[in-house]
Formats: sequence, structure tokens, C-alpha cells
Amino acid sequence: MSSQTVKEQKPPREPRNGVDTPTLLATINAVGAQPELAKFQFRATNRWQSGTHSRTRIESFSGAGGEHTHVSDFVLDADHPQVLVGADKGPLPVEYLLVGLTSCLMSGIANISAARGITLQEVEASIEGDIDLLGILGLSDEVRNGYERLRVNFKIKGDAPPEKLQEIVEQSKNRSAVFDVLTNGVPVEISTEVA
Amino acid sequence: MSSQTVKEQKPPREPRNGVDTPTLLATINAVGAQPELAKFQFRATNRWQSGTHSRTRIESFSGAGGEHTHVSDFVLDADHPQVLVGADKGPLPVEYLLVGLTSCLMSGIANISAARGITLQEVEASIEGDIDLLGILGLSDEVRNGYERLRVNFKIKGDAPPEKLQEIVEQSKNRSAVFDVLTNGVPVEISTEVA
Repeated sequence: MSSQTVKEQKPPREPRNGVDTPTLLATINAVGAQPELAKFQFRATNRWQSGTHSRTRIESFSGAGGEHTHVSDFVLDADHPQVLVGADKGPLPVEYLLVGLTSCLMSGIANISAARGITLQEVEASIEGDIDLLGILGLSDEVRNGYERLRVNFKIKGDAPPEKLQEIVEQSKNRSAVFDVLTNGVPVEISTEVA
Repeated sequence: MSSQTVKEQKPPREPRNGVDTPTLLATINAVGAQPELAKFQFRATNRWQSGTHSRTRIESFSGAGGEHTHVSDFVLDADHPQVLVGADKGPLPVEYLLVGLTSCLMSGIANISAARGITLQEVEASIEGDIDLLGILGLSDEVRNGYERLRVNFKIKGDAPPEKLQEIVEQSKNRSAVFDVLTNGVPVEISTEVA
């Protein structure tokens, strides 16, 4: 072809905020071209220890067309605190939801900022969840078992005008896997084998 | 009063499965008599580290009419794995949901078994979650951001007939805070302050 087309191109985004922005954008493009790469499965195995103490192990997952193992196994203890008749050997199960939500929003904030060419200095999230235990204790059928509501407050500092930084948090929420699951729910199947 | 009423009483439940059953049942009775004790608030603070890596700290909570601190601070890293352009310094945010769900069901199984006088030998839960990342990558508006579904399989061994052990898992599900939140959703408010 002899035609000389000059395409207008944005300058490539450099790495920023600890995000390898070129690889992130190349990954999104690759998945766009081959959508079956986007199917992932995450897994965990939990073993009961004693009382309300249990231990979850996270080792492998599948996605991007293959099997993967994490760099190291993640081992996470959960328990009830003493006021709830446990030994406090780990966070409460409901506290793990707070970890999942804030960390999901935080990852999104870092990636979106990098893609938009904004450098972050500091980001902190505080989260609170209100729960009335009359539900799980079986003392009221009117009270739900889970949290009544969650509140997250972000403090964000970066080299962009306030409204741009607020848009990043908003966009992270709009593309957060955990925010979606917690606000919209997900079907859960439970099966039991007796040994 | 001169009347001599003899009440029929069940023998008190002894500690079992590492659960202090008498204290558990006394706690439930105390909360039944004073329902405001059931109001709890759980909290966490997450600080962005670099890239998709963030660190959550869990220290205190309120409930049972007062403030409490955990026996030790819990510090939890979250990150994306390398195939998702992270440094794999902790579980993925969506993997924390798997920890929360299995550990919540497991605590319930231990408590309910103890209250029913059933001794557990072993309990293990495997969980899988399917997710299509076309949602969070912004490549499809048809695909949700979060998990499409979760599947949990329990293997349980204890000194009761199979149907009694299966009933315990079922009852744990019926009184699980995390199962409720994940299947029914919860309102989440997000606010942002620019520093």
C-alpha cells in the first residue's frame, strides 16, 4: 500500500503510582480481542480449628486461559472476639468483608489514576459497618443477620484538582467487583457431604 | 410463696468443640433480656501502599454496650496477582469474600453443634467463585463487575446421624451474617475528602 496514513496517537501512558500502566492497558486490549481470557475462578479452602476459630488457605486460581498459583500461599485465621465467646485468633468473618471492600476500591483507585495520568500521594479509607446481632443470635425474626449498612470514607491526595480525584473514587466504585457483590448480592450454592 | 413448683429443666450444656457452651447460652439469654447489647459496629482502616497493594488494619469495635479492642491488631495485605498486573503481596479483594463466607459458616457450625450437644471431629469447606472480568475491565456493559455465583462444599464429620449434621450446616446458613450480606446485599455509602 502506498498511502501514507498518519494516525493520531495519544502518548503512551508511563508507569505511575506503582502501576505498570503500559502492561495494564496492553492486558485490557488483549482481553478485549480475546474475551474468553476474562473468565476467572477464585478458590479457597477453610478448615475448622476449634470453637469459632477457622483457617482459610488460598493457593490457586484459574483465568486468562490457564491455571495460576499465588507467589505464596495465603493463610487467614478467623475467629470471634472474647465478648462473642471466641478466642480472638483472627478477624471476625464480617470484618473480612470490610477488608475486601476497601481493598477492591483502593486497587481501582490506583489503576484508574495511573490510566488517567494522575499521580497519587496518599489514599486512606475508613469503613464502619453497623450490625444488630439479634438476628444471628436467633432473638428476632425482624432483624436481618447481616450488616444494616456500610459507610466508607476516603481521604485522597494527588496531583489533580479535587473534582478529578473525586471522579476517580466514583469510577473505582463503578467498576468494583466487591462493591457490586456487596450491594447487589450474588447467588450462593451450599452442598454438604457427611464423612 | 408456699407453692412448691418443680420446673422441668434440661441438663445444662457442657463445653464442646472448643465452644464455651454455658457462656454462649448465658450470653444469648443476657442479650435477650437487654436487646440494646446486640448493637455492634465493626471498623477497619485501609491505606494504599503502591500499585494495587493496600493494607487494612483492624483494631477496635463497639458492642455489648461498650468499646472493645481485639487481643492484637490484625493487619491484612491485599493485591492483584501478576497476571492481573499486581505484585501478589496478598489475596485479591474478591478472595477476601471467600474467607468471610466460609469462616462465618464455620463459626456457626461449631456454635450450633455445641448447643445441640453434638461433637465435631472435622469440618472442611471448599469454595469457588466464577467471575468474568469483562465487567471490571470496562469491556462489556452486559457483564456484571462481581462474581456470577459462589459454590461452597462442606465435608463434615461428627457424632450424629448424617441428617443431623446436614441440619447444622443448614441452620448455620440460616443465621450467617456474611451469607445474608452476600446473597441479599447491603447499602454502602461512600464519601470522599480531598486532602
